Amino acid sequence: MVNDERGTAEGVRIHEAVFRVHDARLEHFPEQDVLAEETPVALEYNGIAYATMLATPADLEDFALGFSLTEGIVEAPAELYELELESNQAGVIVRLEIASERFVHLKARRRVLSGRTGCGLCGIESLTEAVRPVPRVPQGGVVPLAAVLSAMHALRARQPLHGATGATHAAALAAADGALLVVREDVGRHNALDKAIGAAARAGLLRPGGAAIALMSSRASFELVQKAAVAGIGVLAAVSAPTALAVRLAEEAGITLLGFVRGREATVYSRVDHLVTE
Amino acid sequence: MVNDERGTAEGVRIHEAVFRVHDARLEHFPEQDVLAEETPVALEYNGIAYATMLATPADLEDFALGFSLTEGIVEAPAELYELELESNQAGVIVRLEIASERFVHLKARRRVLSGRTGCGLCGIESLTEAVRPVPRVPQGGVVPLAAVLSAMHALRARQPLHGATGATHAAALAAADGALLVVREDVGRHNALDKAIGAAARAGLLRPGGAAIALMSSRASFELVQKAAVAGIGVLAAVSAPTALAVRLAEEAGITLLGFVRGREATVYSRVDHLVTE
Repeated sequence: MVNDERGTAEGVRIHEAVFRVHDARLEHFPEQDVLAEETPVALEYNGIAYATMLATPADLEDFALGFSLTEGIVEAPAELYELELESNQAGVIVRLEIASERFVHLKARRRVLSGRTGCGLCGIESLTEAVRPVPRVPQGGVVPLAAVLSAMHALRARQPLHGATGATHAAALAAADGALLVVREDVGRHNALDKAIGAAARAGLLRPGGAAIALMSSRASFELVQKAAVAGIGVLAAVSAPTALAVRLAEEAGITLLGFVRGREATVYSRVDHLVTE
Repeated sequence: MVNDERGTAEGVRIHEAVFRVHDARLEHFPEQDVLAEETPVALEYNGIAYATMLATPADLEDFALGFSLTEGIVEAPAELYELELESNQAGVIVRLEIASERFVHLKARRRVLSGRTGCGLCGIESLTEAVRPVPRVPQGGVVPLAAVLSAMHALRARQPLHGATGATHAAALAAADGALLVVREDVGRHNALDKAIGAAARAGLLRPGGAAIALMSSRASFELVQKAAVAGIGVLAAVSAPTALAVRLAEEAGITLLGFVRGREATVYSRVDHLVTE
């Protein structure tokens, strides 16, 4: 696991006056409760505001790199020169310095992006821009079905923020043998995957022999497929259902998409030939 | 129930080649599966593109009115003069004609909004714009706790799209006695609530004595609180957890926010004094 020392402290807030309902009766004894924080996070590239997302304010360095990669703003971690976080009352500003040729490209396609909880990317002006074409994932060999199932099983035990708050999703990347490489949590599932991809990129794990499986504690929307495709990850497994668009994009990208991955059960929606069962 | 004849047909797609994993074994017999559709929906006001959301392509008239209301683009259903849907290969364009004074206001605050699945609203350029101030909900009398629990119980049985696909959220509005007034489903929870609010507005149910409780099959993010506040609904109940920001905004708006509403159990996060238990 990469950076296993993360705590949940920055992602939570204690709320003082909670009342429980048990057996349909209200107990009038106020309690404390642990809530997941949700904070506006503004990304600025080379001094220009680009996107504001609502996110869990933890692992924001991973998020910034992951978002920059999966949105195609930079093509490699080395093109991100500097990263600085500034917290204020309204949220967090992430200031990024990127390679000047990337910045020229960014200004040309610049849209004011913004995302809320669970939002992948935004600022799209027309229908045809709404669903970007996905790159084809390089064929990276087959993955054992058992590895996908065991990685998802392991992920279930690795969600401290969800355990404390019930309000977050987790994304993990695993090796082809099912070993978890990195787990990240966020109130938004797309943010969680960007954080996991960013963390893996920082650790040099986005390469053949590195991360081979992406795992999500959530449903599978098409943006998750898009992000996996850009990161070159050939298998995407979700605890819950995919949308029809997610399945279409997985077919286009050559990604093996699994849904309802629960215990020893699952459904395979695309590229079943990339799974081996022995 | 308003417009109870809705089908799920427009929201689903049959996918031909699905493979099941049972007991960790892949069954190599392709099957059909029913998937939830997720389609770009572009909203144009008086000829000007305003927002593109990814949504379930059902009940889009409700969605367009609900979004227009909860985003403050119109202040009353009567300010929306015309609504026209145009489907093409890339998605659906919703053309709206609104009162000219509303349009002047809209142009002044115009941002290119865009939303993905699960995304509330977008296009925000700065941190301080990211979380709009919420209006205070007029004090509408108390609501029986039992009504909230029974409405949520009733909602569970009213989600045909979720039953078919597992990939959608439901939003409902109920009267103060717990009777469900309207239920809508969408791949995005914010869209589902906008659809429910739009359907209720069309039926004249957003008034004292009408919709008093909003119910969500999902978590409670701050945008859901914001939308309930703008619609003047004083109780918001969610099956899963709220975020810290949702709780803060519920306190500001004077909304009673309940989470983990499951059977006869729940947690109350704000304005417990608006609930009666006898």
